[in-house]
Amino acid sequence: MQSKGLSVYALGGLQEIGKNMYAIEHGNDIVVIDCGNKFPDESLLGIDLIIPDFSYLIENQDRVRALIVTHGHEDHIGGIPFFLKKINVPVYATRFTLGLIELKLREHRILRESTLIEIKSDSEVPIGDMKISFFRVNHSIPDCLGIVFNTEEGTIVHTGDFKFDLTPANNERPDIHKMAEIGNKGVLLLLSESTNAERPGYTPSEHMVGSNLDQMIGKAKRKVIVSTFASNVSRIQQVVEASEKHNRKLALLGRSMVNVVQVAMERGYLNVPKGMLIDAREINEMPPEMVTILCTGSQGEVGAALSRLSTGNFRDVEILPEDTVILAAGPIPGNERSVTTIVDNLYKLGAHVIYGSGSSSGMHVSGHGYQEDLRLMLTLMKPKYFVPIHGEYRMLQHHRMLAESVGVEEGNTFIIKNGDVVDIENSIARFTRSIPSGETYVDGVDVGDMEFVLRDRKQISEDGMIVIIIPMNKQDNKLLADPEFFSRGFVDQSFTELKRGMKRITLDTINELLDANRNSRNVLKKNIKRSISQYIKERTRKDPMIIPLLIEV
Amino acid sequence: MQSKGLSVYALGGLQEIGKNMYAIEHGNDIVVIDCGNKFPDESLLGIDLIIPDFSYLIENQDRVRALIVTHGHEDHIGGIPFFLKKINVPVYATRFTLGLIELKLREHRILRESTLIEIKSDSEVPIGDMKISFFRVNHSIPDCLGIVFNTEEGTIVHTGDFKFDLTPANNERPDIHKMAEIGNKGVLLLLSESTNAERPGYTPSEHMVGSNLDQMIGKAKRKVIVSTFASNVSRIQQVVEASEKHNRKLALLGRSMVNVVQVAMERGYLNVPKGMLIDAREINEMPPEMVTILCTGSQGEVGAALSRLSTGNFRDVEILPEDTVILAAGPIPGNERSVTTIVDNLYKLGAHVIYGSGSSSGMHVSGHGYQEDLRLMLTLMKPKYFVPIHGEYRMLQHHRMLAESVGVEEGNTFIIKNGDVVDIENSIARFTRSIPSGETYVDGVDVGDMEFVLRDRKQISEDGMIVIIIPMNKQDNKLLADPEFFSRGFVDQSFTELKRGMKRITLDTINELLDANRNSRNVLKKNIKRSISQYIKERTRKDPMIIPLLIEV
Repeated sequence: MQSKGLSVYALGGLQEIGKNMYAIEHGNDIVVIDCGNKFPDESLLGIDLIIPDFSYLIENQDRVRALIVTHGHEDHIGGIPFFLKKINVPVYATRFTLGLIELKLREHRILRESTLIEIKSDSEVPIGDMKISFFRVNHSIPDCLGIVFNTEEGTIVHTGDFKFDLTPANNERPDIHKMAEIGNKGVLLLLSESTNAERPGYTPSEHMVGSNLDQMIGKAKRKVIVSTFASNVSRIQQVVEASEKHNRKLALLGRSMVNVVQVAMERGYLNVPKGMLIDAREINEMPPEMVTILCTGSQGEVGAALSRLSTGNFRDVEILPEDTVILAAGPIPGNERSVTTIVDNLYKLGAHVIYGSGSSSGMHVSGHGYQEDLRLMLTLMKPKYFVPIHGEYRMLQHHRMLAESVGVEEGNTFIIKNGDVVDIENSIARFTRSIPSGETYVDGVDVGDMEFVLRDRKQISEDGMIVIIIPMNKQDNKLLADPEFFSRGFVDQSFTELKRGMKRITLDTINELLDANRNSRNVLKKNIKRSISQYIKERTRKDPMIIPLLIEV
Repeated sequence: MQSKGLSVYALGGLQEIGKNMYAIEHGNDIVVIDCGNKFPDESLLGIDLIIPDFSYLIENQDRVRALIVTHGHEDHIGGIPFFLKKINVPVYATRFTLGLIELKLREHRILRESTLIEIKSDSEVPIGDMKISFFRVNHSIPDCLGIVFNTEEGTIVHTGDFKFDLTPANNERPDIHKMAEIGNKGVLLLLSESTNAERPGYTPSEHMVGSNLDQMIGKAKRKVIVSTFASNVSRIQQVVEASEKHNRKLALLGRSMVNVVQVAMERGYLNVPKGMLIDAREINEMPPEMVTILCTGSQGEVGAALSRLSTGNFRDVEILPEDTVILAAGPIPGNERSVTTIVDNLYKLGAHVIYGSGSSSGMHVSGHGYQEDLRLMLTLMKPKYFVPIHGEYRMLQHHRMLAESVGVEEGNTFIIKNGDVVDIENSIARFTRSIPSGETYVDGVDVGDMEFVLRDRKQISEDGMIVIIIPMNKQDNKLLADPEFFSRGFVDQSFTELKRGMKRITLDTINELLDANRNSRNVLKKNIKRSISQYIKERTRKDPMIIPLLIEV
């Protein structure tokens, strides 16, 4: 039988944390797994989101059959509206994940024309010659799946994000028996997530956070404010239960907290006793020892509820001395400073603050498996080939070593980049080619190539800019008035002194060029720009953007 | 006897980490302690340094007698050149600290006119009615002092930065007996540093790093690259010794590494065997197992040696597979992302990388005392009053609790801000007043108030800007030509579409105002700015800076 070919690649998620997007190609069928975004770091000035470059899939859109989503975190669903606007394929996901996707599609006004198909961990989806099935995994959001692709070439497994939590707060245990069975039948290639591949041991259970929350809420004398990820429904459920036990009502602050809790309650993932939820405006009317507040902003995000509370800028709600604030989330790398700034401000308000990095405060556990969790997955699946995914380069390398420690043969692990393709033929996997991949920046409503815009923003933001306005007569090329100068983001005191020099240089340059009969607008501008730039650099050691504007009248 | 008055305050270092500057006033005499800088975070676009606002001291400069420097770290000496340019007082510091200060003053070309006075831990300096003496403390740089101010009101002690390292790598043990004696004679007020007040236990000894370095360098099969702070001379000494033991030559990369090692060697703080140092260009001629490289850049600083090595951009030196890279420094909060990016790049080069947060890798220990170190200092000094310094707000609060746990009376600890003054009269301390304090931004060669400049830079850097040029006739207020628009840092594709709308709005606004005889330039500009801004926000959800320019001919 002629092999149809089976290929695996990523458009996002390899050698980075964020914008996960993987794909399986079998013959004429492409199935996409996840479509996330990532948040830009400070160097991408003013960019709101980064999503994968979809161009390869757009070129092959007649072969794209489905988007399967493993779970509802932003780095797995945040790119979906942008993707569906280009390629409107059916989206398969579990009930809770679909709820979060719907929020997004509604915001982008494309919910009605989208096809959303609910699956469960025991669903089977046939696509082309592939039989696709699923298994339940634990993570820090409900209803997470791993995916199994059964093909004539062999079986490919994608783990999704996972940990093994044997005492999960929601009692939804991982499908370990099913995983064992899949492994027993033979896995040709495993794609497994690598976030915590550097951390030894097992991830602690979500259960641990529950008992600590209960203890702390029980001890608190006044208001309790818990900040966590809105999508961590199990943790929210534990806050609900501890608050109920200690006779506290619950208020929700922050848009995503309100939205996600609503989805979770409507779809049966969160159980809040009737009458327990109160409005933010009711908080002040209650005795403080009867109130728990659940809020967003655990990462120190400016403008989120916790940040506003910490600076006294939240309407109707105030943090007062002896209130207890619990940061039930570890800072994501890069957010440490923002978080400690908030902790500091909370201290200034006189609050007790429970915080700490990682699990050290007892108020947070990771949703991603540590080394022993990863080894357990590898042991259950016994794959012939292994592609570590969802991690920065060093995490993928650590994951490779873990795989080899439990029996994956040396040379059978592929550490690849976004766009690199692993092709499988006759049960042999090879990496020989790449497809286009990259980052797409989203700025406000615009999606596009922002390279020049960013370069401009960066130069202006570091050294400011100087604009030179040169009013010229269209007919005779004579100056109509003296050139004018204005600056933005440039130190003013030196600017006043510099104006005289710039004026002289501009006039000299214009006269020189006109004398030589070189009156092309571009030549004029280029020369003025160069001589002014040089002059400013010498005087100030700064390199502002210089913009000559010829105004022709 | 009439009390002369004794006052204590900070111009930097309280409720922040960085730009330490404290002062003691006794009668007509002001003694300043340290004058550091701090590095701006990303929100201060293009700012190079932050230094304390000296205006209070400048106003009282006829009373400022001396600057005493506890040790040579940037957050204690980085502001000195700027300070001496305003107030040229004698600078007292130990031999090594003076070496580093001299480097700075030479760079600023004010070394010759400065007065530098060398002190030792057993020196005594009389200033006015104060007798000033010192005691040796351990930290992560050689030759550190605590300061004792003996006055008729009582004794004030400033600890400097410290830990208690009973097995320091340089055998310079802390003056514990002297501290005990000072405490026995009675301390009225203690100023003690708070950096690690949140961390339980004792700081591990620098010695521990030495044996780990030795082991790792002994095991390495090829080149070893160690990155650490250039000022941590003890750690550098341990790298020297381990390299010597394992028959390796030593190359230094990075300007500050070369400079500081030179100062340390010249002044007898670092002992490097003759012939051991090699030039960077000689590295490639040596067998790799005979080379150790010491380099700057352990904080992931862009442009520093380690960053350039990690991307293959260091002339003459290359990191190759199986080389060992040791990050012998923990990331300072805020630098985590830059450091992990470098670790990732080093992995891609095939290097073994030894890294980790805090002391977890065994290759770094803090120079700041943990809780038990701080308790020991408080116990030795037995102060009546306590002012925790050198720390963010929550650290100061933690330090207060530590003080109370070892006997400082409740109510006798002052948690104050920069500029707050603690006045002592008849042995009673009170906080009742404040003096001017603040931040001064240094941008290139300019020192000044950058608030407006920064606000501009920020807005432009996030959303770009749009300039509207309106050429008008000075006499009759008529437009001489159509308004022109140009943008920078703004997404171009939408700009082209927006121009038509902006033109219409500008013309409408001008006509409307001129019809109403409101032809003041400011009114015109304000109205155009407002209506264009509104239009752009509606269309693009962005808020670029709008700059209307009237060009009058």
